[in-house]
Amino acid sequence: MRTSQYLLSTMKETPADAEIISHQLMLRAGMVRRLASGLYTWLPSGLRVLRKVEQIVREEMNKAGAIEVLMPVVQHAELWQESGRWEKMDAELLRFKDRHQRDFVLGPTHEEVITDLVRKEISSYKQLPINLYQIQTKFRDERRPRFGVMRAREFLMKDAYSFHLSQDSLQQTYDAMYQAYCNIFTRLGLDFRPVLADTGAIGGSMSHEFHVLAASGEDAIVFSDASDYAANIEKAEALPPQGQRPAAVQAKTEVATPDAKSIEEVSAFLKVEASSIAKTLLVQLNPDLSFDELTALLSYAGAETIENTWRSKVVALILRGDHDLNEIKAEKHPLVASPLQFASEEDVIAVTGAKPGSVGPVGLTIPVLVDHAAAHLADFVTGANKDGFHFTGVNFDRDITTYQLADLRNVVEGDPSPCGKGNLVIRRGIEVGHIFQLGDRYSSAMKAGVLNEEGKHQIMTMGCYGVGVSRIVAAAIEQNHDDYGIKWPAAIAPFQVAIVPMNMHKSVRIQEAAEQLYKDLTAAGFEVLFDDRKERPGVMFADMELIGVPYQIIVGERNLDEQKVELKNRLNGDKQLLSLADVVTQLKTF
Amino acid sequence: MRTSQYLLSTMKETPADAEIISHQLMLRAGMVRRLASGLYTWLPSGLRVLRKVEQIVREEMNKAGAIEVLMPVVQHAELWQESGRWEKMDAELLRFKDRHQRDFVLGPTHEEVITDLVRKEISSYKQLPINLYQIQTKFRDERRPRFGVMRAREFLMKDAYSFHLSQDSLQQTYDAMYQAYCNIFTRLGLDFRPVLADTGAIGGSMSHEFHVLAASGEDAIVFSDASDYAANIEKAEALPPQGQRPAAVQAKTEVATPDAKSIEEVSAFLKVEASSIAKTLLVQLNPDLSFDELTALLSYAGAETIENTWRSKVVALILRGDHDLNEIKAEKHPLVASPLQFASEEDVIAVTGAKPGSVGPVGLTIPVLVDHAAAHLADFVTGANKDGFHFTGVNFDRDITTYQLADLRNVVEGDPSPCGKGNLVIRRGIEVGHIFQLGDRYSSAMKAGVLNEEGKHQIMTMGCYGVGVSRIVAAAIEQNHDDYGIKWPAAIAPFQVAIVPMNMHKSVRIQEAAEQLYKDLTAAGFEVLFDDRKERPGVMFADMELIGVPYQIIVGERNLDEQKVELKNRLNGDKQLLSLADVVTQLKTF
Repeated sequence: MRTSQYLLSTMKETPADAEIISHQLMLRAGMVRRLASGLYTWLPSGLRVLRKVEQIVREEMNKAGAIEVLMPVVQHAELWQESGRWEKMDAELLRFKDRHQRDFVLGPTHEEVITDLVRKEISSYKQLPINLYQIQTKFRDERRPRFGVMRAREFLMKDAYSFHLSQDSLQQTYDAMYQAYCNIFTRLGLDFRPVLADTGAIGGSMSHEFHVLAASGEDAIVFSDASDYAANIEKAEALPPQGQRPAAVQAKTEVATPDAKSIEEVSAFLKVEASSIAKTLLVQLNPDLSFDELTALLSYAGAETIENTWRSKVVALILRGDHDLNEIKAEKHPLVASPLQFASEEDVIAVTGAKPGSVGPVGLTIPVLVDHAAAHLADFVTGANKDGFHFTGVNFDRDITTYQLADLRNVVEGDPSPCGKGNLVIRRGIEVGHIFQLGDRYSSAMKAGVLNEEGKHQIMTMGCYGVGVSRIVAAAIEQNHDDYGIKWPAAIAPFQVAIVPMNMHKSVRIQEAAEQLYKDLTAAGFEVLFDDRKERPGVMFADMELIGVPYQIIVGERNLDEQKVELKNRLNGDKQLLSLADVVTQLKTF
Repeated sequence: MRTSQYLLSTMKETPADAEIISHQLMLRAGMVRRLASGLYTWLPSGLRVLRKVEQIVREEMNKAGAIEVLMPVVQHAELWQESGRWEKMDAELLRFKDRHQRDFVLGPTHEEVITDLVRKEISSYKQLPINLYQIQTKFRDERRPRFGVMRAREFLMKDAYSFHLSQDSLQQTYDAMYQAYCNIFTRLGLDFRPVLADTGAIGGSMSHEFHVLAASGEDAIVFSDASDYAANIEKAEALPPQGQRPAAVQAKTEVATPDAKSIEEVSAFLKVEASSIAKTLLVQLNPDLSFDELTALLSYAGAETIENTWRSKVVALILRGDHDLNEIKAEKHPLVASPLQFASEEDVIAVTGAKPGSVGPVGLTIPVLVDHAAAHLADFVTGANKDGFHFTGVNFDRDITTYQLADLRNVVEGDPSPCGKGNLVIRRGIEVGHIFQLGDRYSSAMKAGVLNEEGKHQIMTMGCYGVGVSRIVAAAIEQNHDDYGIKWPAAIAPFQVAIVPMNMHKSVRIQEAAEQLYKDLTAAGFEVLFDDRKERPGVMFADMELIGVPYQIIVGERNLDEQKVELKNRLNGDKQLLSLADVVTQLKTF
């Protein structure tokens, strides 16, 4: 490709509205352009990368026995009503009416469509298992689209759905997909980690996320320093501390803590570490509980607590002052509302007698759920349930007798790994893939079954497997760039080699050498970007660095005296002189 | 691909709701499934075909110097308001609001988006010409989607847009696209014709359609039997008849024609050929004309006609009884409303004094536009502008003195070709491509210009070039099928060869031979469908014929005795016996 006949569209300045490096570089290197909020046009160089990612994903899916289909972007509402998601999903699901006033959605995922297809096309256990995938444009009406194609409204996704009659069969396909994803990200040349993940709103029993590691990643992911254990922070279990809790020494004492409300303020005022303070968060009770269910769950507590809880609908969560609440873990507790909702200030005052900031577990007649680490504290500080006062020297079992233990916090670096080996390390990641064991969430609702070996109708069990194809392009840049621009992994670079002739338009010799190289390299099957613009060498070098072409061949007068050109490696900056005659052979060895 | 691990989804019965053969066969052969009205899921076999079509289109576009981009499906309304199409387009343009109540459309085409991109990215004449294309999902909210993917609401299209500073440059790219399209349809293996077309609502100066010839085609296309001339029927010019009009012989005579209104009825009642009757159609006057403009256009007529026309807003069109009105041609006449609107019965009565069916040109004081062929009639029959009466023996210039000549009719077979050579032949075609010289329709409205060589801002001129990628799949079937199913052209067949082992599950020998063939053919790079189902041979043969795999290898006991298999050619039905060892070599020669 000649730059003179191409849409290079590089920019020198960093666009003001691009917050993260991949967005900045994708705009500057002419990969994408914003059409409207969360909507991007892929320019020629960006599209070349996108198609390479897509093709690697396709090849590995095919190798793993998945079969490609293509489902419509536009889906009719009836299927979403049948699965129950028409009501459940919020404004992210873009709904609209056609000319006949029928309801439709722009597909953010295709569980309903594929389940409808499979229930119509598959009737016998003999046709199972089957794993169908597509690579298709999706739409999610994000409230605040940002970070360029990283969190766009319209994006390209590979989504696969598998159907089975047994958990064993599902597990086999799940494992095959796990391996296919490892192959995909390895071939893409990315440093990635599969991590255990929570199954969240989609439901199901088992789930892994695939993260591209990058300092700028939105997600915290957790590893053991001594095993293969890896999980996202939402999922990573915090083990209870080892050994005995220290014995109580101090007496419980009420102290005035005027204006000290946050953990930091109390810590500074009382001169105690945050790790010696217990913080108390009041959240809403699970609204789905009946009185009988609540009574059963609180059978260890007195009638007063049960009645007070039924009336106030509030639950207390106790964490160490230096620990963060893990909302996903809390939501899983049967007493806690999901999604998690904090109690209003009014409710806090009604239940504790104090405003938030002076609240503590002592004397509460609501459920008190204590994180394992907090439960290991002795002689600790906590709010006195009296505005402007805290207790020091508080101890569980002595001062707080009715409570439950739970895993409520995010793990922190150095925590023992839940696998039993080593300690946890925390890194940042960008989620680019997600595999789920869905179970029968959709197949039950949509009555998708087949005749099993006994000739009986049986609901299928499902897996689903997503890859964010367009997101991978941005994630690859977050992981691979320097001050000069993008450093594409070879497998997805828009071009493999650039020819940069210096002042070609003033030198017939340089022009001839460059044209010959372009001809030879193209004939040898390389994807070549030939910068034949009338630009200063500095501009051309900067553009090729920015776009991130892995190899650059610089054709200049002095080296041509010896029939040589300079070959520059974008990745490590290495330069070497090569005979013109050796260029093709040399590049083939890389 | 083994059928046992594939989604074959063939059907024996013809679905009742599929009207045309391609739709029936695409359903029966498991190519597509209907999700909702005008929305189709592409099943694995169909998608394989679609991707092959897509890839051929891409390769030929790249060869012709076009550069691929990818624009969003979802577009914001502002651009459509800027181009004026937000108001102009009817309900086919699907409009919706996002969560922030902003207006968007699902893109049916991308003129606005590309013009916006180019005006931002291209600033100098040095960057022109440029031709950008994409292969993208489009949406058109058809009032009545039908014929499967032939007229779907969601469809796959290749659309290209070129930008220029001169008509010469536009013509060059237009010619290159014309050639690229010929290459595409040739490579696809389709019998096609490029035909001159009207530029219609999109506007512009020059246009060709590319039609796949098929008896079931929706469009009539017109050729010369002695030259390269080809046009769609809307565009094909009808030459005025040669020679002198016969002299008037009969006297004009009023005859009663009770109940005879249509041409057929009058012809039967009076025992004259339809070709000797002049039919009169009253249509609305061009509403954009001012009184002065009308006066200028009717300068040849008297003041009474001008005033009556201004008052009645009606124009008369006169055609030979056996000819059809060509609305596109009529709309181009400066006196006629575009789009064409027939006058109401009330207006007909007010202007002529008679109801439709008894109307004629004699004595009218409105513009009378006479088709060249009708103007060649002598002693003809026409309505007497008196209910239940016609005139016989009518003659132009004697009985009708004030009229204009115009080309108003569709050509018919046998008409002389407008190119001057040979006579016209009419065939049916399916439009699969369309190229346009757009001019500045969008670039002017959206102020898309660059600095020209003189350093002045100049609006660009544009071309646009579409290919209906998903429609081609259906058109290929309309052209290539028989009673047993699809006969895919080799370049787009979902598989190149099928292995059909007879009763494999009862014979180790057959199984081994089939497995070995599958291994060898796959290793040799063939796309093989290996029918390893436990089905009767008849079912397997029927499915392979239906799907249209070009070559079938039948592995049976008797031939295996001699280490042979049967090779069947789907296209011509030829069968030959081949040694097992020769299969790969033989298939490579095709």
